[in-house]
This record gives sequence, structure tokens and C-alpha cells, in this order.
Amino acid sequence: MDELGRLPGIGRRSAERLAFHLLKGDEPSAMRLARAIEDIKKTVRHCQHCFTLCDGDLCPICADPGRERQRLLIVEQPKDLIALEQTGMYKGLYHVLMGRLAPLDGVGPDSLTIDRLLERIDSPDRFVPPGGECVAISEVILGLNPTLEGDGTALHLGEELKGRSVTISRLARGLPTGWQLEYANKAVLGDAIEGRQRVE
Amino acid sequence: MDELGRLPGIGRRSAERLAFHLLKGDEPSAMRLARAIEDIKKTVRHCQHCFTLCDGDLCPICADPGRERQRLLIVEQPKDLIALEQTGMYKGLYHVLMGRLAPLDGVGPDSLTIDRLLERIDSPDRFVPPGGECVAISEVILGLNPTLEGDGTALHLGEELKGRSVTISRLARGLPTGWQLEYANKAVLGDAIEGRQRVE
Repeated sequence: MDELGRLPGIGRRSAERLAFHLLKGDEPSAMRLARAIEDIKKTVRHCQHCFTLCDGDLCPICADPGRERQRLLIVEQPKDLIALEQTGMYKGLYHVLMGRLAPLDGVGPDSLTIDRLLERIDSPDRFVPPGGECVAISEVILGLNPTLEGDGTALHLGEELKGRSVTISRLARGLPTGWQLEYANKAVLGDAIEGRQRVE
Repeated sequence: MDELGRLPGIGRRSAERLAFHLLKGDEPSAMRLARAIEDIKKTVRHCQHCFTLCDGDLCPICADPGRERQRLLIVEQPKDLIALEQTGMYKGLYHVLMGRLAPLDGVGPDSLTIDRLLERIDSPDRFVPPGGECVAISEVILGLNPTLEGDGTALHLGEELKGRSVTISRLARGLPTGWQLEYANKAVLGDAIEGRQRVE
């Protein structure tokens, strides 16, 4: 009960209920849970290139020599990577910052994986997957959340990348598909006007 | 009661309640309502240039010689114009289509104000506001809703505008400011990747 009660969102009463549930249940399912928890700490690691979660040295994306290795999409968290990957529209590599700059919460540039990001751009020879070739990164896509902190982080990254020969772009901001114009707020409509895209 | 009951969303019982409310209330407020209803039909008209609602021949935007008259933003309805105008970010002119193509509902190109739109582009001399100069339109911005019917209408307009010497753009589609990436759906993320914007 003490141990279960240390999990977030689980109080004394919930911990009690969970403990009795485990006590009453069969042994194999309790063992499966115990082993899964052990596994989280033992087998789930950060990819040595992009920092997403995986169960080996390299995640399947970084290990795949078929990806467009000249493109790097920077996201805040592993779940952002998953969301973008599910679109099936991006074939390049990712880099997970493991957070965003949040000065008020004490999250500075050193808490993020910016050093590794710059290393990936500056020394592509150190990030060649088994069976792959050394490909220099030519495009960095900022995929941070369109929030105040995300924008601040993007600004900081822009400064860090200045002087390096990479094209910098960011995910498009504007009207989300399926919305009605009349219900969009001023900020969204302003972005949509400012970022208007040329039609062929 | 009969007349009130013809309004949309007002049934027999509501019409009865409204009629008795008017009967019990004072005369001046009933007269104000009667006059407001008369005014809607007598004074509210469509602007002769852009078709938005106004109380004269020209709406304040079309009548203003200070607007960037070389730009034309095409919207579906007057309320879209109001939403975009409230951002304060657009200084050009508008054109209200008064609907969108909806073949299933029998709304074809002839039901919209496309003829007048083409006339505005082809004969700018006929659309000079009092005290203004004749300015040719050089940019058309498609501001239709990011929906299936809006996209269909934009496609049709693109065809109609082909061969005319105007730049065609559309409002940016992508992530709405303030959202989190992880909650955006595939279509929105796909647009955001595809339409990614170059950062200086």
C-alpha cells in the first residue's frame, strides 16, 4: 500500500483498494504487472540519436537507413513524435528535446537535449546507423507546440542554429482542417492571413 | 401569432408566448421592434462591389480609398468578413460569395457572386469608390472554410481565375495557435507538415 500510494493520483484509499485487488487476484497476473514495471526501468531507454523512448540503443526510425536522413523534425516529447509519425507524411528523422524552455519552472537550455541536437548537425559521421551512410542534415523543422513556451523554445533554437548551413522551417500554423472560419479566434485568423500560402 | 410562428425555430406555443408578451408590454418597445424589422428589409442591402451587408450602396470597406485595393480576400459569408476584419491584420478588400458550391444541395456557380468577382478583376475601372483611384487587383486570397465544400469552391475559383494575371493564395492551414501537437488529428498535422513555413 505504501508503494502504490506513492504513484501520482493514487491516494491512501485507492492504494488500499489496489493492494487488496492484487491480493485477491491470481499470481500470474500480479507477476506480469511486477515484471512490466521492472521492464520499464530496465528495457525502455532513450534512443542514443534522437532521445525518443525505445528498447534498444537506437529507435526504429533512427536505425532505418531508408529514412530521409537529411531532414530533422524537432519535437518536445516522444508522444509528439508518435502523433506526427502516424500521419505517414514525414519520412525524415526526429529529435526529441525532452521538454521545452520554461524559465519560470527552472527549465533552461541545459535541461533539454539541445547539445545532442547540435552535435547531430555538426558531426553527422557520429550518427550513422548500422548499414547506413553518413548524411549531413540540410533541413531542420521546428515542431514545437504553438504555445508561448513552444514559441520561446523555437526562438532559442533559431538562435542556436544561426550560422549553421541548414534550412529552418516550422510546422504550418493556421486554420485547422474541418473548422469554420467564423468560429476561429483572432490569433488563428491572424496566423492564417499572415501565413497565406501561394496556390499554383 | 400566425406571423410569429413562421419564423424558424418558433412553434405554435412560442408564438403564443411572444404575442402575449407584446400585448402586455408597452407600446414604444413593440413599435421599436416593428420598425427594426421594417428596417432590415428597407435599409440593409448588399454592397454593390463586394456583396457584404451594409446600409448604403457601398460598404465602409469598399468605400474607403485608403484600403489596399489591389488585394481581394474571398469569403463565403458576411460573418466571415467580420471575423477576419476583427483581426486588424488585413487591409485589402473583400468579396463575399454569398455561399459555397454544394452540388448535393443544388448550389451551383450561378447561385454565387462569381460573375461579379470576375468583373471586379477584369474591369477595375467600374469599381472605383468616390474619391478613389482605379486600382487593378493583383492578389486574390481564397478565404473559404477549410471544409470539403469550401475546398471544392476554392478549386472551382482557381479554375475560373486561371489565365488572369493575379497571384492566388489561400489562408494558411495548420496548427491553431494555443493547441498542443499531441491532441491534433492526422489531417491537421499532415497540413502542418506539408505547409511548413520557412523561418528567417
